[in-house]
Amino acid sequence: MDAEQLRECAHKMVDFVADYYKNIENFPVLSQVQPGYLRELLPDSAPTHPESLQDVLNDVQAKILPGVTHWQSPDYFAYFPSNSSIAGFLGEMLSAGINMVGFSWITSPAATELEMIVLDWLAKALKLPDEFLSTGKGGGVIQGTACEAVLVVLLAARDRVLRKVGKDAVGKLVVYSSDQTHSALQKACQIGGIHPENCQVLETDPSTDHALAPESLSQAISQDIASGLIPFFLCATVGTTSSTAVDPLLALGNITKTNGMWFHVDAAYAGSACICPEFRHYIDGVEEADSFNMNAHKWFLTNFDCSALWIKDRSALIQSLSTNPEFLKNKASEGNTVVDYKDWQIPLGRRFRSLKLWMVLRLYGLENLQAYIRNHIELAKTFEELVKQDPRFEVAAPRKFSLVCFRLLPPQNKEDRANKLNHDLLDSVNSTGKIFISHTVLSGKYVLRFAVGAPLTEKRHIVAAWKVLQEKASALLRIL
Amino acid sequence: MDAEQLRECAHKMVDFVADYYKNIENFPVLSQVQPGYLRELLPDSAPTHPESLQDVLNDVQAKILPGVTHWQSPDYFAYFPSNSSIAGFLGEMLSAGINMVGFSWITSPAATELEMIVLDWLAKALKLPDEFLSTGKGGGVIQGTACEAVLVVLLAARDRVLRKVGKDAVGKLVVYSSDQTHSALQKACQIGGIHPENCQVLETDPSTDHALAPESLSQAISQDIASGLIPFFLCATVGTTSSTAVDPLLALGNITKTNGMWFHVDAAYAGSACICPEFRHYIDGVEEADSFNMNAHKWFLTNFDCSALWIKDRSALIQSLSTNPEFLKNKASEGNTVVDYKDWQIPLGRRFRSLKLWMVLRLYGLENLQAYIRNHIELAKTFEELVKQDPRFEVAAPRKFSLVCFRLLPPQNKEDRANKLNHDLLDSVNSTGKIFISHTVLSGKYVLRFAVGAPLTEKRHIVAAWKVLQEKASALLRIL
Repeated sequence: MDAEQLRECAHKMVDFVADYYKNIENFPVLSQVQPGYLRELLPDSAPTHPESLQDVLNDVQAKILPGVTHWQSPDYFAYFPSNSSIAGFLGEMLSAGINMVGFSWITSPAATELEMIVLDWLAKALKLPDEFLSTGKGGGVIQGTACEAVLVVLLAARDRVLRKVGKDAVGKLVVYSSDQTHSALQKACQIGGIHPENCQVLETDPSTDHALAPESLSQAISQDIASGLIPFFLCATVGTTSSTAVDPLLALGNITKTNGMWFHVDAAYAGSACICPEFRHYIDGVEEADSFNMNAHKWFLTNFDCSALWIKDRSALIQSLSTNPEFLKNKASEGNTVVDYKDWQIPLGRRFRSLKLWMVLRLYGLENLQAYIRNHIELAKTFEELVKQDPRFEVAAPRKFSLVCFRLLPPQNKEDRANKLNHDLLDSVNSTGKIFISHTVLSGKYVLRFAVGAPLTEKRHIVAAWKVLQEKASALLRIL
Repeated sequence: MDAEQLRECAHKMVDFVADYYKNIENFPVLSQVQPGYLRELLPDSAPTHPESLQDVLNDVQAKILPGVTHWQSPDYFAYFPSNSSIAGFLGEMLSAGINMVGFSWITSPAATELEMIVLDWLAKALKLPDEFLSTGKGGGVIQGTACEAVLVVLLAARDRVLRKVGKDAVGKLVVYSSDQTHSALQKACQIGGIHPENCQVLETDPSTDHALAPESLSQAISQDIASGLIPFFLCATVGTTSSTAVDPLLALGNITKTNGMWFHVDAAYAGSACICPEFRHYIDGVEEADSFNMNAHKWFLTNFDCSALWIKDRSALIQSLSTNPEFLKNKASEGNTVVDYKDWQIPLGRRFRSLKLWMVLRLYGLENLQAYIRNHIELAKTFEELVKQDPRFEVAAPRKFSLVCFRLLPPQNKEDRANKLNHDLLDSVNSTGKIFISHTVLSGKYVLRFAVGAPLTEKRHIVAAWKVLQEKASALLRIL
């Protein structure tokens, strides 16, 4: 690790990465390689002797990039976005450069304190209730992903209720969500040992735009209590993965409060939009929540991974996740004057992830970040309009943010053909490599998802994407 | 995200990072700030308008770096090392630049396939049994940390046994480890709902150099079976955190096999050394293990985080951790022809972490990596010699790798004063900012840990560190 050699090599890598962005539109968005392609191209074992950086970069260009699906391409519209930005990239560089492991305050006070401060900043930008700030009994913490966020709060909630009812009652604990909730919750339940039959997945339908109906929650809770079960956790979503449905937080929160349950709000994708005053109403009712999560790495220009979790009662988290081995003891921790984030998360070690979020907030400023969100929402509206203008298509769920759910209508209204038709359309457009979109199923209907959100996407990309979709639709309809 | 602006800013950041390494010896190794220092220095909320990169870098220099504990300093000897290297740094840059989220094969085939290939490379370098290779029923996966590694295999083991005995029997499941096992196991048990009284922590002592005695395991298992409990998991360690003790894998593995238990080997730190033929014997018996873990981010020049986990039966992991939501379904996954790493780990999303490990292996080559390990072990021997030459000190546990456990002997053999004396010595040397070391307790004795392993450490740093220790010891003994 020679500083001058680092300088020389890293300058080369900067140029490689900058050139990648310069040429990103030339790649097929969705990688077109076949399974197992790379094993043919690489040796069977690690080299004994060193190779040159240029050799490695040549291999990245020739062998790796063809196998990359380009999430940063302006023609990427699949799943949800995973934003990269100059500020985010610089933050990752700095974090990798300092390369400290911030499990306890003492292992780098700045890492812990900057995270507390920046999550307070973001909480204020989202107008979260003061109980979520680190200055009281709550606070924010950066998790890797929304999966880890919902897992740690589920564990905190599980252990809180088990402390009351006894640990042998774990088989009676019931978790509630809608059928639109992210699979992260199911996984958290599997991990935490919640019995699968006690994961109450409440059905939604188009009558509520696939939002969870409070009555359906109340009813399920009453039945479960009557059966001797113990309702303890609700995960509501603001901006579901399938269709960006928004669960009614206030009404749901009241029900959880009445029943002494933990109320978690997953706003992994749509949370970012709530820094704009005109979209903030989507998280009205968040004051009822025990925990709230949004992914800065999705739609907030912060490179993956950076999932912000706030909690009102940090002691619940700490009680579930703390360990105190001798080799980590130190004066600051023993003195109880500091936060040790190791007790707020699954792993012990943690990177200096707050740096990139701090740099995003400072290098762009809230006004630009709001403009960034609004621009994507306008682009999504543009796409929605294009869909509406073509009578062969329909918008399949109301657009709230920057995701448009739509589908190609089956000829002669033959609904039994619709799902296959849209499945084929998806395959057909994705195999062009020109755009990448994904799908979902809403109340039995196979639906295409067009998620705007890559930083490089402009209006011309939307228009071109729509042209690809129309062409492929025409081709499919022709052979039907 | 303009490519030319990225280029310009990132070149500035390269120089900032290179200068950081150039000047790293000028900082106090252990940050000397007081709790809450940063809140005084930063504003209360995020800026509305953008700020300049230069302003941010100035703040990093003036406000952040004083709060950093410099893990990359050549004078860092605490805990275990967390290596940074040019190759590792470049790999992080590239991964942050591409910024894809590789949960399923299709979301970037190269990310999944490179990880499989590189973990096969590393498995071969470690001479792990073929069952751990991805070409059979097993395979490797990069986890964030050893905590996540032990957690996912504990869950796989838990669910495997519960499928046999019924899920209501979770309260009967028993996990075994020694009192030297990393707290990661305790945390995994808390998360997985293993009852605390069923976490059998077997005592070790100096007679086995704090390794777990097979008889003690056999005995505990027999007693537990007699009490109607179900032994299902053993975590053995090669290179414990406190003193780098090595549990006897072969004998322990035989016991777990007889009892149908899952056998996990945690070689988070010492695994790296096993790429050298002369140290490979420390993992003899690994053929008996179901899973094996080493942290490339500790002592293998790969920037944090990168924890390599191998498993013989990947289906066990997948059964515990898979979910299959509609919005992630795709032809490749449905066709069962690919690996989807989302089902091998806790989170859904994952970075392109194999890039940095691949670059470390290629840019250095196995021979240099062996030389790197050997050099640190030689440096640790040098330190050990220095301790032995000063009759006021003793080596407190046999040195096997690059960690030296030692302590200052109490004057007039007053053992009741020894622990406080060494505690004070630790405080005293760390508060100089010249070196940073940590401690442990071995069989009741407070012991100082001197862990060699930072890439920049040379013999002169070892000699200087010992001088600081001697000086502070003299000062303490003078006032006793």
